[in-house]
Amino acid sequence: MNFNDSQEFADENISIAKGKDGFALENYFYRSDVIYQRELSEIIFKSWFYACHISEIPQNGDYKTVEVGEDSLIIARDKTGNISASANTCRHRGARVCTQKKGNAKSFICPYHAWVYEVNGKLIGARSMGEDFNKDDYRLKKINTHIFEGMVFINCDPEAADFKLATDKLIPAISPYHLGNAKVAATRSYPIDANWKLVIENYLECYHCGPSHKEYAKSHTLRDEASKVAHLNEAMKKKALEEMGFQPQFVAEVTNQYLNSPVFGCDISHLRYALYEKYKTGSLDGQPLAPLMGDFKGYDGGAGDFQFGPLTFMLNYPDHCVLYRFLPRGLKESEMELVWFVNGDAVEGKDYDTDRLIELWDFTTKEDKFIITQNNQGVNSSFYEPGPYSPVFESLCNNFIRWYLEVIGEI
Amino acid sequence: MNFNDSQEFADENISIAKGKDGFALENYFYRSDVIYQRELSEIIFKSWFYACHISEIPQNGDYKTVEVGEDSLIIARDKTGNISASANTCRHRGARVCTQKKGNAKSFICPYHAWVYEVNGKLIGARSMGEDFNKDDYRLKKINTHIFEGMVFINCDPEAADFKLATDKLIPAISPYHLGNAKVAATRSYPIDANWKLVIENYLECYHCGPSHKEYAKSHTLRDEASKVAHLNEAMKKKALEEMGFQPQFVAEVTNQYLNSPVFGCDISHLRYALYEKYKTGSLDGQPLAPLMGDFKGYDGGAGDFQFGPLTFMLNYPDHCVLYRFLPRGLKESEMELVWFVNGDAVEGKDYDTDRLIELWDFTTKEDKFIITQNNQGVNSSFYEPGPYSPVFESLCNNFIRWYLEVIGEI
Amino acid sequence: MNFNDSQEFADENISIAKGKDGFALENYFYRSDVIYQRELSEIIFKSWFYACHISEIPQNGDYKTVEVGEDSLIIARDKTGNISASANTCRHRGARVCTQKKGNAKSFICPYHAWVYEVNGKLIGARSMGEDFNKDDYRLKKINTHIFEGMVFINCDPEAADFKLATDKLIPAISPYHLGNAKVAATRSYPIDANWKLVIENYLECYHCGPSHKEYAKSHTLRDEASKVAHLNEAMKKKALEEMGFQPQFVAEVTNQYLNSPVFGCDISHLRYALYEKYKTGSLDGQPLAPLMGDFKGYDGGAGDFQFGPLTFMLNYPDHCVLYRFLPRGLKESEMELVWFVNGDAVEGKDYDTDRLIELWDFTTKEDKFIITQNNQGVNSSFYEPGPYSPVFESLCNNFIRWYLEVIGEI
Repeated sequence: MNFNDSQEFADENISIAKGKDGFALENYFYRSDVIYQRELSEIIFKSWFYACHISEIPQNGDYKTVEVGEDSLIIARDKTGNISASANTCRHRGARVCTQKKGNAKSFICPYHAWVYEVNGKLIGARSMGEDFNKDDYRLKKINTHIFEGMVFINCDPEAADFKLATDKLIPAISPYHLGNAKVAATRSYPIDANWKLVIENYLECYHCGPSHKEYAKSHTLRDEASKVAHLNEAMKKKALEEMGFQPQFVAEVTNQYLNSPVFGCDISHLRYALYEKYKTGSLDGQPLAPLMGDFKGYDGGAGDFQFGPLTFMLNYPDHCVLYRFLPRGLKESEMELVWFVNGDAVEGKDYDTDRLIELWDFTTKEDKFIITQNNQGVNSSFYEPGPYSPVFESLCNNFIRWYLEVIGEI
Repeated sequence: MNFNDSQEFADENISIAKGKDGFALENYFYRSDVIYQRELSEIIFKSWFYACHISEIPQNGDYKTVEVGEDSLIIARDKTGNISASANTCRHRGARVCTQKKGNAKSFICPYHAWVYEVNGKLIGARSMGEDFNKDDYRLKKINTHIFEGMVFINCDPEAADFKLATDKLIPAISPYHLGNAKVAATRSYPIDANWKLVIENYLECYHCGPSHKEYAKSHTLRDEASKVAHLNEAMKKKALEEMGFQPQFVAEVTNQYLNSPVFGCDISHLRYALYEKYKTGSLDGQPLAPLMGDFKGYDGGAGDFQFGPLTFMLNYPDHCVLYRFLPRGLKESEMELVWFVNGDAVEGKDYDTDRLIELWDFTTKEDKFIITQNNQGVNSSFYEPGPYSPVFESLCNNFIRWYLEVIGEI
Repeated sequence: MNFNDSQEFADENISIAKGKDGFALENYFYRSDVIYQRELSEIIFKSWFYACHISEIPQNGDYKTVEVGEDSLIIARDKTGNISASANTCRHRGARVCTQKKGNAKSFICPYHAWVYEVNGKLIGARSMGEDFNKDDYRLKKINTHIFEGMVFINCDPEAADFKLATDKLIPAISPYHLGNAKVAATRSYPIDANWKLVIENYLECYHCGPSHKEYAKSHTLRDEASKVAHLNEAMKKKALEEMGFQPQFVAEVTNQYLNSPVFGCDISHLRYALYEKYKTGSLDGQPLAPLMGDFKGYDGGAGDFQFGPLTFMLNYPDHCVLYRFLPRGLKESEMELVWFVNGDAVEGKDYDTDRLIELWDFTTKEDKFIITQNNQGVNSSFYEPGPYSPVFESLCNNFIRWYLEVIGEI
């Protein structure tokens, strides 16, 4: 049962509002509650996105919750060591069965009527429910999980395609980081008063990097037109292959497909691009931040840029990786979560300093929060009219929006 | 004029969402503004509910307001000593004429244009309104009142059935408390971020009492399956009749009718059940809290459980009574008001201690506030699916919800 | 693209809700989001209203923003000295290009992608937009301006009628104040939790002045029935013409037309009425507050009452003028802005004291804020029923509401 009293009006408005290829989105899609409910059911809850790293729930009984929209989801390691996910919604009257953000538990006892669930969602206790009641019919709703390089991804759609179909293609580019053995050095959450699509659009283009991110722009060549930094990219690739000994696929581009993606919610991409000279990694001064990760034998002068489904991204330096997850919390509220990974055996205080580690992206994300908020105010204007995307810098935004309109408009 | 732009969509959704007998409510009914507006006009403002006790407005001119939804209602004793109620909405441009929560007044002078009303709502002054203006056409909208055992009940529907038709049946069970001469010892208000129906459902079942209310569960047998405590109920009834000298009707059950109730908004019930041994009354330690009320000559080991219409309940111990009134303040905001009564001649500090008097139910209501809030979050989940009510403990919830769906769906 | 999922339901409800001539508005119009969006597009953004005084942006590059609904508008003096207005919404992705409330700038550089606009809205910089991109197609959306007696009025409708057609008629009554050379002595903003129409209705009648504004009512005869103060008005007019030497048009009434107004959004009015004896100006004690303005040679015992379009009003005393602008910020949120003008050469601290200057209307506006808030609560009541306007005092409200219903109902 959806909440869409006005479904058919929405359909009519969509056909009017689809706009022109190459242009930004009509503000109807940033303002309509009907659209937002449809996005939750047709995009957010049908896409794979990052939940946590296996090292955050190492013991049997360990669990962590993820908040999406008005929902709470539980990721847990059960008594057999298996990692699974469930909706945090009691199958009796709907109360949240898990009231903590993380912890270790033998079982979840619903605080309302004490139905008891194993941490993997299996219902094991429900008093006075009568003889016809079968506990097997009432486990917490199961959510798909896929562990990729130590990262637990989830998908709330029971019919979801296997994420492995997509992620396998990224293995040559990502496996050198040994993320399966990495350590979460820091996590920061940035709530923002903006529609989630504005947050994604912000991440998908570096047209704003020059004007908005002065520090970032000193080090990352993505902010420049490709032709101007081609020599740096060539040099980086040469170094990666010849000096570091990586295979060609380590630096090969994997383009996301959007409209042509064969499997919904599994779209992925990879690009390795150069940092400016003198920058070894994503630090303010270009100096190393942590021990080299996995197979790295030195700094190749590059950074890896990954997309894992529509909501999760990663930026990979030789000595640390930064994961970004963007989730809606309401029509005009979202959450940006950043996770910093370092090599599994790195020791805080000795091998890395957390403040320094997170400095560049904490600062840059706060800059993004400011401009996305300005953007959200602006698209709610009566005078807003979708403008043209930069053909040089914003084609990924256009691809995203065209895909989005196809998904939302075809339902 | 309703606010229901989408009335017919609501009708369609209701027919889809009625769900199965024996199962909780679809979340459409906890989330739709259209439904909430309909509930206000078709249930809340057509039902009898408690407003105040006559002892709170003892003098002519005394008044008290009650807040429901976005509305304010006035209960007042006029210059003839008569108690009546009116909508707190000026008949000129709509401003609230009474700006205080309680007080004593000769008249209400609207703060906007100074139309003057007697406290019973009669318009007695309106300057410069022209010759055709007849003050008799513009009294404050009248709200029905019914005084039952000193408690003032109100009903906003001009066509409301007489509440006396229902309450007369409760007289043998309630008159021994002499509530007409009782004293309001304390009033507490508990705002809660939850739909009003979740608050009612919480009150209507004791399936949650064991797990959620440890203190309450020590003393009140309602938390147990009836068969297990039948002997205690038998003993209590025997004591009430033989030792205390009450008539059989004092302990007789009156079942609420819901779908079969002959008169809308007047449904009532009564049940007298046992406390566990050593508990004389609703206190943490089982010891008395105040002087015996009315006709009581001792403690019979029982507690009376009353329902007065869909929104008001009462729990009656030999030495004090606790009234509960649940009102919506918005789609996802409600207010639980508790009123503690003691015998009319009891003196605070000497005969009872207010902190001790309210301890059990203040504490238990705060526990309920927590679990109902969890429930409200849960039913707003995309993964919420109505579960089965416990046939042993939650049949009253099911009766309430089936009645609710009939009322809302048939309009 | 409007946000009106439920446009046709709105149309149906309007035809039901138009109500009776002489009676206040049904609360549907104060509560419906669909109606509010329609009001923005069909009334607010098609009407002339006050933005600022030319003396607030004296230098080339000076600018000021005005907030309306969820929108921000920029009024600026460009490098040629010309005053113009633009929507504060980047033509690329919609971010607000100007992030300050006022200041001086050579250009506005959008904080998101650094598109550069002259302060008059002309796009002069946009990197990497491809060869087909023509900057002339993407200037900030132009908003009409009209400077009248030094006051900058704006209208967001490209098809708006020239405000001069209306304001010319007011010149004889307003020119003696020399407002073009006046000085803004103070500006105060009063946010209020009320629908904007309730704020306008409050300004349009003085039926509430006696009961609600004790201080104001001591001095201003508008609060009394016209027949009772006719002699004071006669004496004031005589003094203005004979002693002060003004032309008859200075005291002539110009009636606003509403339904008969030939030009939408340009309706104007003027009335000069007497103060009570001993009151020279709008001060608490009746004593002067500032040097005489413009052509005034003394106090004529009168005050001028002007309307400039549906949202802007002015109250003119011989020694100062007070402008009122009422704008919606949301369905149930508005802003009242008051601007106090004194003669251009008056010096603060020497010729006038700001606290004393604003005392009467700051106080009176706070009183209005209280009663309008009460009114807003009241019209949201389920028991609200539109009452009759006072035929003696509230005919302007009725004219406004009948005009409003015509505009909203005919779209």
